[in-house]
Amino acid sequence: MRIAIDLMGGDYAPQAIIEGALLLARAYPEDRLLLVGLPQVKTAFPDLPDNCLYLDCGSVMAMDEDVRGLMRKKDSSIWMATELVKTGEADAVISAGSTGAQMAAATLLLGRIPGCERPAIATVVPTAAGAKLLLDVGANADCSPELLLTFARMGAVYAEQLLNYDNPRVALLANGTEEHKGNKLVREAYALIKGSDLHFIGNLEGRDILTGNYEVIVCDGMSGNIAIKSMEGAVAMIMQLLKQELTSSLKAKAAAAMLKNNFRNVRKALDQEEYGGAPLLGLSGISIVCHGGSSAKSIFSAGKLARKCHTNDFVNKLTAAFMAEPIQ
Amino acid sequence: MRIAIDLMGGDYAPQAIIEGALLLARAYPEDRLLLVGLPQVKTAFPDLPDNCLYLDCGSVMAMDEDVRGLMRKKDSSIWMATELVKTGEADAVISAGSTGAQMAAATLLLGRIPGCERPAIATVVPTAAGAKLLLDVGANADCSPELLLTFARMGAVYAEQLLNYDNPRVALLANGTEEHKGNKLVREAYALIKGSDLHFIGNLEGRDILTGNYEVIVCDGMSGNIAIKSMEGAVAMIMQLLKQELTSSLKAKAAAAMLKNNFRNVRKALDQEEYGGAPLLGLSGISIVCHGGSSAKSIFSAGKLARKCHTNDFVNKLTAAFMAEPIQ
Repeated sequence: MRIAIDLMGGDYAPQAIIEGALLLARAYPEDRLLLVGLPQVKTAFPDLPDNCLYLDCGSVMAMDEDVRGLMRKKDSSIWMATELVKTGEADAVISAGSTGAQMAAATLLLGRIPGCERPAIATVVPTAAGAKLLLDVGANADCSPELLLTFARMGAVYAEQLLNYDNPRVALLANGTEEHKGNKLVREAYALIKGSDLHFIGNLEGRDILTGNYEVIVCDGMSGNIAIKSMEGAVAMIMQLLKQELTSSLKAKAAAAMLKNNFRNVRKALDQEEYGGAPLLGLSGISIVCHGGSSAKSIFSAGKLARKCHTNDFVNKLTAAFMAEPIQ
Repeated sequence: MRIAIDLMGGDYAPQAIIEGALLLARAYPEDRLLLVGLPQVKTAFPDLPDNCLYLDCGSVMAMDEDVRGLMRKKDSSIWMATELVKTGEADAVISAGSTGAQMAAATLLLGRIPGCERPAIATVVPTAAGAKLLLDVGANADCSPELLLTFARMGAVYAEQLLNYDNPRVALLANGTEEHKGNKLVREAYALIKGSDLHFIGNLEGRDILTGNYEVIVCDGMSGNIAIKSMEGAVAMIMQLLKQELTSSLKAKAAAAMLKNNFRNVRKALDQEEYGGAPLLGLSGISIVCHGGSSAKSIFSAGKLARKCHTNDFVNKLTAAFMAEPIQ
């Protein structure tokens, strides 16, 4: 397959992004990678593998740049990379840059699936019961109950097609598990999803996200973003505390050295890099959103996800699911 | 001082609650504890210290019971314990039972501070930069921008009076730090708080909660609840993973034994029990909300918090602050 990669987006761009692209190029020599970046980046990486093609862009959408400016920056890396999918020159696009800009470019260039009012970002969560799905995690801060039902449908198709779950259990994220919990949005969405043909299991709380007794948790983009970033913050704090303690004395250092592999296993179980990307759901094309702090490994994982979406014909399956189950 | 304690609320009630009360009774012999519980509980604990008085209640509000039923259960432990504050027989009430029932009882019996439309639950967060405040964490799933401004004012008074911060920095919880981030509620509250005389520092994300580069983070009750429970879930998962790894072999067990004190320090730094309770803010009286899963130690901490609120004359100071700064 052919993957367009925005080299300019992300905290460690272009270095980490290029390194991730090179990992992909070597792992999948049959693929073709279209690397979109500023001309000066190309000169820094003169020896690209044969299956990498470098394409010059003229500008970059900054992380905090107003998305409305995108229409005046059609030479930006994210616009040009997404355009390659629109024109059929690429099968997917990957970026770790401004999510707003990526979503705007994808919506404008690729279009939405009929029945999906607004795209969502779904993230795979490494839980105690395997990989599960949480959406939306940041694309839509304000949602309607109908939009949450759309997210529930998209999440269920994702869980079936890409995570291989049969009849995936769908839940809503709330401040309690009882039916009357949640804000007005959640309570209204509860009734809608309960009335649908989805396998709805009611409300779950923040602490349930990592237990994994569900396949899909649906929420508005602000709640989802708060949930994952709060968990990230907690993990970072514990790792920091452990590091302090385990280097606080010679004895601690010696014991910690004996546990090196054990700590590595813990880190691995928590490793978001393993999942490294999330497709924008609801668009007529594959656009993989990566964390701003993406490493080369994250980009590599995002590439594997793009391949999975492509080989599973995910977008067409999602479209078919929406055709079969029109929103009331 | 005199503290009324609801013995019947909480996952480990009445055992853990009574044990917590006994810790308080012994630590502060000058205090008087009014223990409200069912008659059969009294018989299980016949030898109470002299400064504990047992008061029989006739019923209990269950955790998931509809709060509207409270008016028909004026013999319930939470109603009776709160009534002791109303009649002046107690200076504060503590409960680990249904938060909704506790809030309803407190609002009905103690009344609200003028200018505070609805009470909020503030929780103290153990951050890398000391104890900070997050509110609301569950009392109000649906909020108006004006209510978030009220929470900001109450949080600032709390941070000043009970956490000893000068000119506390107040932030909003959102899905990004830029001014345009957040949902409609957050964006409108941003303008209101920015226009107030509070020391407003803009938006913070979920991952910033534990860094502590603020004194007060304000949010609606659903977002706050999702944030703290997501962090709780992440901490629980890491602890579980560590436990698995550190007991996975004899070598690991031996090394882990050498690090016992270090792990204890990490657990201590993360220990919510140290904070153990949160006052309902905005009420004309002290009502301390405890986590449903409260241990004896949590109840003890909640008692210390009640003492701090009382000796600092917190409710009057909060009322005075609202008189001086009327809501526009």
